[in-house]
Parts: sequence; C-alpha cells; structure tokens
Amino acid sequence: MIRHTVAFTLKHPKDSAEEKSFLDATLILKNIPGVRNFERLTQTSKKNNYRFGLSMEFDDAQAFESYNVHPIHADFIQNYWIPFVTDFQETDYENYDS
Amino acid sequence: MIRHTVAFTLKHPKDSAEEKSFLDATLILKNIPGVRNFERLTQTSKKNNYRFGLSMEFDDAQAFESYNVHPIHADFIQNYWIPFVTDFQETDYENYDS
Repeated sequence: MIRHTVAFTLKHPKDSAEEKSFLDATLILKNIPGVRNFERLTQTSKKNNYRFGLSMEFDDAQAFESYNVHPIHADFIQNYWIPFVTDFQETDYENYDS
Repeated sequence: MIRHTVAFTLKHPKDSAEEKSFLDATLILKNIPGVRNFERLTQTSKKNNYRFGLSMEFDDAQAFESYNVHPIHADFIQNYWIPFVTDFQETDYENYDS
C-alpha cells in the first residue's frame, strides 16, 4: 500500500467561496482508477504552515503511476493546482511493518 | 478525529541495527492511552527528503494533549528523539468533511 499525501496552502482567503470551490474540485480525483480512501483534510499543527491536505491510497506503485499520468489528474493540476496553490509538500508513505 | 503524523530522518545509517532499534523503540508510544491506529511508515516520495514516518490518531484534542504530556512520550523524546533524529516535520490532520 502506498499512501500519497500532500499538504498545501491556497491563495484564496480563509473560508472563502473560492477556497470551498477548490476543495470541491479535488473530489474529481476520486474518479481516477486505483484511488482508494480519498480524504480532504485540514492541517492543524502549529508547527506547520500548510492549511489543507489530501490523502489517498494505492495498492501498488503501478496504480500510483497510472494516477499520476491520468488525464483527470493532469487537468486538475493545470486548471486548479498550478493557478491556486501557493505552497505544498508531498509525502508518500508505505508501511514499515509489512 | 486528529491524525498526528511526523516525517523524520535518523542519524543512523540506512538499514543499520541502530535504525531498527530506534523504530522498535517507537512502539512504546502505542501504550499511551488515547493512541489509535499507530503506524510505522517509510517515506518514499522523491520530492521529500524524510526517510520515515509515524502516524497515529486521537479521538479529540484532549486525547492528543494527554499524549503530548504523558511521561512515556516525554521519555521517548528525551532518550530517542532528541539524540537520534536529525530532521523532522510534524503534520496534523482533521477531516475537512466531518
């Protein structure tokens, strides 16, 4: 299992309609084959400046790669991520114990 | 639900006995009341330099705070985290949708 996560901050004002619109647009990523346990998250640690997070899981590296190159993902990056995300950090996890 | 995560890098050599010893020492944190879904993780994104991760969940902020001040946590920080962790980033998530 690969858990792909990204913490990020938007250029939109906090609690604005544009912010909600961006977060709603992320839901289309759930439709990409192989995406499991998709979550929209709020980042709350004071030791971290990112405001939101996304988390999703893939069965294996091949499913993750198929997601990365899928047209829905490419369109989302072009139309939402690049224009509206000011800062982000990707973190991908695999289980140490399995 | 609060998901507390930390990505980190150790001073120990990769795949060394000391590295395994550190990761085994983290398991004591599971014994702290309120800790749920404790996971030891390997960080695999090439866009991120951290090597490992820990993830755990708490029912609420009070449970998370009790963990933070628990003597087992304090001892772990003193005896393992401070001596052996060279770099880390905490990220805490709550569900945006709930």
